[in-house]
Amino acid sequence: MATKARVMYDFAAEPGNNELTVSEGEIITITNPIITEGAQDGISCGNSLADQAFFDSLSSNTAQTNSAAKSSNQASIANDPWSSWNVGKSGNWDNGSAVDSWAVKPESAPGQRNSASNNWEAAGAFGHPQAYQGPAAADDDDWDDDWDDPKSTSPSYLGYKETEASEAGGVQRGNSRAAAMKLPLNKFPGFAKPGMEQYLLAKQLAKPKEKIPIIIGDYGPMWVYPTSTFDCVVADPKKGSKMYGLKSYIEYQLTCTNTNRSVNHRYKHFDWLYERLLVKFGLAIPIPSLPDKQVTGRFEEEFIKMRMERLQAWMTRMCRHPVVSESEVFQQFLNFRDEKEWKTGKRKAEKDETVGVMIFSTMEPEAPDLDMVEIEQKCDAVGRFTKAMDDGVKELLTVGQEHWKRCTGPLPKEYQKIGKALQSLALVFSTSGYQGESDLNGAITEAGKTYEEIASLVADQPKKDLHFLMETNHEYKGFLGCFPDIIAAHKGAIERVKESDKLVATSKITPQDKQNMVKRVSTMAYALQAEMNHFHSNRIYDYNSVIRLYLEQQAQFYETIAQKLRQALSRFPVM
Amino acid sequence: MATKARVMYDFAAEPGNNELTVSEGEIITITNPIITEGAQDGISCGNSLADQAFFDSLSSNTAQTNSAAKSSNQASIANDPWSSWNVGKSGNWDNGSAVDSWAVKPESAPGQRNSASNNWEAAGAFGHPQAYQGPAAADDDDWDDDWDDPKSTSPSYLGYKETEASEAGGVQRGNSRAAAMKLPLNKFPGFAKPGMEQYLLAKQLAKPKEKIPIIIGDYGPMWVYPTSTFDCVVADPKKGSKMYGLKSYIEYQLTCTNTNRSVNHRYKHFDWLYERLLVKFGLAIPIPSLPDKQVTGRFEEEFIKMRMERLQAWMTRMCRHPVVSESEVFQQFLNFRDEKEWKTGKRKAEKDETVGVMIFSTMEPEAPDLDMVEIEQKCDAVGRFTKAMDDGVKELLTVGQEHWKRCTGPLPKEYQKIGKALQSLALVFSTSGYQGESDLNGAITEAGKTYEEIASLVADQPKKDLHFLMETNHEYKGFLGCFPDIIAAHKGAIERVKESDKLVATSKITPQDKQNMVKRVSTMAYALQAEMNHFHSNRIYDYNSVIRLYLEQQAQFYETIAQKLRQALSRFPVM
Repeated sequence: MATKARVMYDFAAEPGNNELTVSEGEIITITNPIITEGAQDGISCGNSLADQAFFDSLSSNTAQTNSAAKSSNQASIANDPWSSWNVGKSGNWDNGSAVDSWAVKPESAPGQRNSASNNWEAAGAFGHPQAYQGPAAADDDDWDDDWDDPKSTSPSYLGYKETEASEAGGVQRGNSRAAAMKLPLNKFPGFAKPGMEQYLLAKQLAKPKEKIPIIIGDYGPMWVYPTSTFDCVVADPKKGSKMYGLKSYIEYQLTCTNTNRSVNHRYKHFDWLYERLLVKFGLAIPIPSLPDKQVTGRFEEEFIKMRMERLQAWMTRMCRHPVVSESEVFQQFLNFRDEKEWKTGKRKAEKDETVGVMIFSTMEPEAPDLDMVEIEQKCDAVGRFTKAMDDGVKELLTVGQEHWKRCTGPLPKEYQKIGKALQSLALVFSTSGYQGESDLNGAITEAGKTYEEIASLVADQPKKDLHFLMETNHEYKGFLGCFPDIIAAHKGAIERVKESDKLVATSKITPQDKQNMVKRVSTMAYALQAEMNHFHSNRIYDYNSVIRLYLEQQAQFYETIAQKLRQALSRFPVM
Repeated sequence: MATKARVMYDFAAEPGNNELTVSEGEIITITNPIITEGAQDGISCGNSLADQAFFDSLSSNTAQTNSAAKSSNQASIANDPWSSWNVGKSGNWDNGSAVDSWAVKPESAPGQRNSASNNWEAAGAFGHPQAYQGPAAADDDDWDDDWDDPKSTSPSYLGYKETEASEAGGVQRGNSRAAAMKLPLNKFPGFAKPGMEQYLLAKQLAKPKEKIPIIIGDYGPMWVYPTSTFDCVVADPKKGSKMYGLKSYIEYQLTCTNTNRSVNHRYKHFDWLYERLLVKFGLAIPIPSLPDKQVTGRFEEEFIKMRMERLQAWMTRMCRHPVVSESEVFQQFLNFRDEKEWKTGKRKAEKDETVGVMIFSTMEPEAPDLDMVEIEQKCDAVGRFTKAMDDGVKELLTVGQEHWKRCTGPLPKEYQKIGKALQSLALVFSTSGYQGESDLNGAITEAGKTYEEIASLVADQPKKDLHFLMETNHEYKGFLGCFPDIIAAHKGAIERVKESDKLVATSKITPQDKQNMVKRVSTMAYALQAEMNHFHSNRIYDYNSVIRLYLEQQAQFYETIAQKLRQALSRFPVM
């Protein structure tokens, strides 16, 4: 089915644990699960600070910073200047654009940089507004436990309601995200390692075992799309249980449209896949988060239906993506044959080292290198666009949510009241004792009932149109929330190249090193453009479809009401 | 044009003044303009109390109660047992039905009755929810002054808004009505006199100079309708001034459709007419009050337009009524030829003594007398119906007002926001740099503009449909507010007849007196039925028309929206 051959990983079975091997002199970054309150407010990793750290990392022994890290009782070794590129910026657009967040912080003395940089990472790493929010303790050994811990105690049919509410303010949003940043360390080996330095400065990149081609199409750089596509149908949610019925969960059946074979997965399996995709592709491709976890009411029919619908949408997105859908981890998720194969594949995926920025090492654009001006312009343009669209999407979500509330709350109540008032009046009229008004009273009663019907129509309508508009925007909000990290990675790489002349001049790096850097940043830029072209073509298709659907359903809605009113009108006697 | 000849009044020119001639032994009732706070709460004139007073009035010298009245420093001589019949009950349906308000109050000692009866009258006399609310000082000499004193400081396009607000609670409503009860004494001579006693017990009624026939039609007793009807067009509001421009007012042109002649009248002239009609016909025919007085903004175009519309509606009502429209006072109001003729007619109308219950003396039903059981049943039925319809109408007004607010406030704002959000999104999309999406962006922009148009349509719609539904209900609320007094007059008369056997037994009255009473109460019952048949036929016509109009306009409204949405939809590219 796929057009590109996949090189398989070497595999050595090593069950995951919470330990991390740190070799002497190795520069590591661990995102700090404990956030000092307010630490992420307004603290940004300035360019000058990052630059200073950059030079430090090249000119001095890292033991110094390592010892600084040891003085902390937290597992925070945040002295890798590249780390700020890897983990990206805040992920919260509200704090300013990607460029703004790299703002110079001239007062920061070098001695302060650890804490500042630490906070930056803590606030920023995987800072997708909807990124994984699982518990810190969920490790591999705990795989069989249920991850769905009680986060949301007020489940609502409208998932976005809640999301919106918790993201009302930038600061609050930052906090809530930060609070959810308890990423299991061993699940993100690539991200936590100094991939950017490795990628940009390696004399020669290891010949990648997997290759992600980028070609130049009519619209510019693009991923190579498989000749045949497939979708995955998520269906048939079934309640399962284990531990002699003490724990229960919902299992969904996934059927690929190309193989017609089915596998079963629980929500937490999806969540595992999301994490793998995020770790592997997250700096090149926006991986929207899964629908929110939820415990209360998670066996309620409405909730299961909604979650399934969203898992379906998420899977469809992933299947539609030429890079993600063809990836081994994704294929393995859909096509394992038995428990053993699944476990084997799972472990292999977790061992994958082509993650973070290293994903760009697998890409080979069939085009001449871009120059730095162009690279930066493209990156800035993407930053501006995604930020602006993020604003636009959120505006629409806010307005839509407000409208949803009105349409399901006060408005139908009012139509009901109008209906009741008309019927009451007809009932009074029927007691007049006056002859020959029964036709009128019957007609008024029917008009009243019509308004009660209209009340139902109004209340039911959002599910038929606004729902899809909201879901699509919600999905795009998820995509757009991934861009701050993506942009930050690109900006970070660009900044490194910009600084590289000085390093060449001081013989810190060779001209060939610099040449390599430009080439690799150019590859990143091609990847960004390829992804943006994928994004745009999807966006155009999705918004065209969903707004058409919305307008069509709205028109039908108003036509139905008008018809009902005309029918009610026709019952009135002509006098 | 009219079918019935009108007997003219004798006329003696006596300019009105504020003095009242009280002959010794004459029983008069003056409605007390000063209300003790809370006095009207829950105080009702019980049957037993009224009965006691009734017997007192027949068995004892009234000097006793007169002296009691003298001990009051207010002009309250409230010892006429008939007065409670004349002034009727509360006029506020919310205090219970007409029957309920006559509830026995066994604890009332005779010595307390003056104050109780006093309060009752104060709260009840002309207690139309929308009755005349002019200033106490407005007497005949003050005719040229502007009556429009600053009552409403917050004019609103929706007259009913304010009315509704001030009538939110029964108690508040009672208070606000009581506060407005400063009726100029000399304007209601008939009402203030013991008309009921005179009418029911007079050995022989003076041959009336005017006659109001009641015939039996297909639907029962009915007024005689003129063979040709007319309407009066209220138009061309012009600002006039007097006192060298110090005072200004609005004058409206009234043109009768039958004569095509025009006269000019100011609001206060209408108000004068309203008073005359109320005094003369108010116990037989509901005379709805005029649109509220208002000073602030009364020269604003919108206000003038609304007032004119309502004066027009009021005039149309009056013209449509076979008794009112043919009355001398009404004809004179429309057909005077010059200032002198107007003034003469005005004075004559003010001297008219065929007012209050005496109006029934002009009626001659061409039908056998009704028996008392039937009379009482008919009266109760009218009481029940008008009370129930009053509730129904108020419910519809409340709901309509709420709906009006939503349609002109939050709902269009929301559609505007949806429109803006779509346009914002299209604007963002247009910056993508991606080729070939301009059609989509144009279509989304148009869809956004369509929602802005829908916002305007929504906001403008109430003026096209709900407005008329509200106005009609508002008018009917006015009619229905007159019924407590009407019912009370009838119930009072019925009670008198019920008590009359005792009086015959104790030779207080003769059997012939009792015979006369029954006949006269029967006449009242015929009048009530004639009026109710008029009311019902108008009601059926009005509600049929206005609900048809409403549904038609609503259907068109929804059709227009659907059309606009389909047009917007057609602009989207098919992918």
